[in-house]
Amino acid sequence: MISPEVKAQLQALVGDKWVLDRPAELYAYSYDATPMYQALPDAVVFPASAQEVSGILQLADTHQIPIITRGSGTNLAGSTIPTQSGIVLNMNRMNQIHEIDTENLTATVGPGVVTANLHQAVEAMGLFYPPDPGSMRISTIGGNIAQGAGGMRGLKYGVTKDYVMGLEYVLPSGEILRCGGKNVKDVAGYDMTRLLVGSEGTLAVITEVTLKLLPLPETKRTLVAYYRNLVDAAKTVEAIIASKIIPATVEFMDQGTMKVVDDFAGLGLPLEMKSMLLIEQDGPAEVVDRDIERIARIAKEHGAAGVEVASSPEEGAKLLAARRAALSALSRLKPTTILEDATVPRSRLAEMVEEVERIAEKYGLQICTFGHAGDGNLHPTCMTDERNREEIERVEKAFEEIFHAAIRLGGTITGEHGVGLAKKDFLHLKTGEASLELMQRIKAAFDPNGILNPGKIFTVSNRRRLVVQR
Amino acid sequence: MISPEVKAQLQALVGDKWVLDRPAELYAYSYDATPMYQALPDAVVFPASAQEVSGILQLADTHQIPIITRGSGTNLAGSTIPTQSGIVLNMNRMNQIHEIDTENLTATVGPGVVTANLHQAVEAMGLFYPPDPGSMRISTIGGNIAQGAGGMRGLKYGVTKDYVMGLEYVLPSGEILRCGGKNVKDVAGYDMTRLLVGSEGTLAVITEVTLKLLPLPETKRTLVAYYRNLVDAAKTVEAIIASKIIPATVEFMDQGTMKVVDDFAGLGLPLEMKSMLLIEQDGPAEVVDRDIERIARIAKEHGAAGVEVASSPEEGAKLLAARRAALSALSRLKPTTILEDATVPRSRLAEMVEEVERIAEKYGLQICTFGHAGDGNLHPTCMTDERNREEIERVEKAFEEIFHAAIRLGGTITGEHGVGLAKKDFLHLKTGEASLELMQRIKAAFDPNGILNPGKIFTVSNRRRLVVQR
Repeated sequence: MISPEVKAQLQALVGDKWVLDRPAELYAYSYDATPMYQALPDAVVFPASAQEVSGILQLADTHQIPIITRGSGTNLAGSTIPTQSGIVLNMNRMNQIHEIDTENLTATVGPGVVTANLHQAVEAMGLFYPPDPGSMRISTIGGNIAQGAGGMRGLKYGVTKDYVMGLEYVLPSGEILRCGGKNVKDVAGYDMTRLLVGSEGTLAVITEVTLKLLPLPETKRTLVAYYRNLVDAAKTVEAIIASKIIPATVEFMDQGTMKVVDDFAGLGLPLEMKSMLLIEQDGPAEVVDRDIERIARIAKEHGAAGVEVASSPEEGAKLLAARRAALSALSRLKPTTILEDATVPRSRLAEMVEEVERIAEKYGLQICTFGHAGDGNLHPTCMTDERNREEIERVEKAFEEIFHAAIRLGGTITGEHGVGLAKKDFLHLKTGEASLELMQRIKAAFDPNGILNPGKIFTVSNRRRLVVQR
Repeated sequence: MISPEVKAQLQALVGDKWVLDRPAELYAYSYDATPMYQALPDAVVFPASAQEVSGILQLADTHQIPIITRGSGTNLAGSTIPTQSGIVLNMNRMNQIHEIDTENLTATVGPGVVTANLHQAVEAMGLFYPPDPGSMRISTIGGNIAQGAGGMRGLKYGVTKDYVMGLEYVLPSGEILRCGGKNVKDVAGYDMTRLLVGSEGTLAVITEVTLKLLPLPETKRTLVAYYRNLVDAAKTVEAIIASKIIPATVEFMDQGTMKVVDDFAGLGLPLEMKSMLLIEQDGPAEVVDRDIERIARIAKEHGAAGVEVASSPEEGAKLLAARRAALSALSRLKPTTILEDATVPRSRLAEMVEEVERIAEKYGLQICTFGHAGDGNLHPTCMTDERNREEIERVEKAFEEIFHAAIRLGGTITGEHGVGLAKKDFLHLKTGEASLELMQRIKAAFDPNGILNPGKIFTVSNRRRLVVQR
């Protein structure tokens, strides 16, 4: 609990109505989109400016109160669970699109802007913000940056980190700093911008963002290819890249995912098939046409049992929307859906999918796999029930084995979700212990008293945990 | 001077012939490509592996000996001058191209690989490493990463930092760490890869690099446009971007640069013109043709007095080679050539060029300006004579004013050269003092005893300087 004095000071900083501390109000901030984690904060505060954030952080730093910065809480790593209580800093009031600069191709926004709203605003001006994380209709840009969010267009266009040009951020000391800006080239000092991307609220609170934009591609076309096995789908992806085509999107779904997606969206997919690829290319019309034709030919040459080119942009959009609904569709099957994002170099995709199948069978679990095949970024998804402790133990063992398999194949434990609580016990597998120590020394350089999102990313033995068992 | 014991230990680590300490040998490592800086190291050591680097760093850390890591020394910021003596760590023996992975589109190389050699190796396989810093025929990949090097293709393709996917690096403690890898998506912990890019050898020694590659563009075409003033050239650049075309290269030269380049390369440029743009587009042939036609039309609509499309790839290559020769050409005019890289957001280009002209006139100096117009990355270049102390003082004042002007226009003090010695007194203009303190705390997290390239990037008052006056 925060003291009456601290509460009064918070109210003086942001106004009475922007400080919540009644249990019913706190409950909504005790969880995020990650299953099986929950903890109550002491208060929720809604700042409206960098100055207010600065005041809150100074106060929290003085009183050693944890600060959990949060947008819409759509992350899948438990990164915004207030496991050590403290203040949830809800950034959703700072949701202004300050500027869309058509000369420099930048957008400057508050961290609370919803990703899809930014898409809409820039596309109306013929511009393009490529990162499209699965939760983009709800997630915020600040949250996307905190988690280093990815999406379906990563293969051709990169991910959130590739579009953050400048930041305003606040340290626990209350200092308001800036890094980067609108310059396409800038090497003045260390790259603080990219260090903050993916730091999950453990280094600073981001209060303003300058993003890179591109011209909106002229057109796009979509193609689906169905396979009687997994290997041919993976081989098709390799062959497309080897033929020097980089599609905007190359999505993969296994049979289990195809079934639930088809049931959910009524697409009439050929459910006897073992896997499918959903490929989109964008760009100038003549190039898109040529690439789609070449991709169709490559798919057939690599064992596709069926290849269909979407007849219209609407049909293409419908197919992609169905793929976007994969998580929602899968989550209807069982009470608890655990979505992972083990990622491997593109060339190891088939091996990784087979490993996931083998592990699911070994532990008697239902795991469907879909994901961004072009990136090697898979989402093995387990449908389970958190009330079944025995099964959950098997789920945990299976995912541990999946992480080890990804690392063995040169991959990583998380491609686009982040570490948070969910994967911090496995981070050392990717980075090694010495890197983790170095990262913690970097954290101390920003946050010497450790108030920013304590207990996330790094495993600390002596944490004070107040987890509410649901 | 290093002690006989330390010398013997270095010799034991790398072999006798890879430790130099005779004055005549040291002299060659007392300077880099930056005018007016020079200082003798105590020794030059040539490691052949990460293990050798580890041993050298442990030894240096124990004895508090500065380590100045260096490739070909082509940097223009004084970043590899051993101002506090110590050991120059020459990485040129670690120049193997370990692997070009055509499935994952990556190259894994030693830091000592010469940039142009990498270009040649990957292009022979139909692949493309876009970063092309001016010194690419001599510079090394390790040096490019240390400085965050840019080049002519930054507008469309980004710069070195956008192509570094993974690193192996060694801390002063001797620990050999890895970050990133071949995964297109990877958010496992803080982004150490990008923190090391542009850190100028102050954080760690890079011993292996994994770079992102692209398919080689099918074709390219080049166009030149001449202008009777500066503003029309800048307006053309803005209009091209506003029409949603992103050319691979948009280079600018003012009249002074045109004259010396023409004299140097015999191009027959129309020297009565005040400025010119050199524009290259690459990609699929039909798109390149269409873009070049549209760019030609836009240039004419925005006041170009002449527009010429290169008739062949050879003619285009000749024009670009002439632009690449700008620094060499200018350096023939006077004994000392000082090349800066003040950078502004693209939309402020014309203002910045005019500011440079005004400042040159104010201080009675000959400053020619050329650079990467698409990036707002200018190279105001002063032809002077370092033996003329009075003029050099005016040069220093003029550049100080140029840096202030860049910052005032939302720009930065260095777009692609780095801070080093040359710009460390101005870094605070861009970052603010609090950011500099934070960066120094980050440095301490890597290098607690401050042995790595001491005195670079940050202004430290109590440095031990042993500068040899030339």
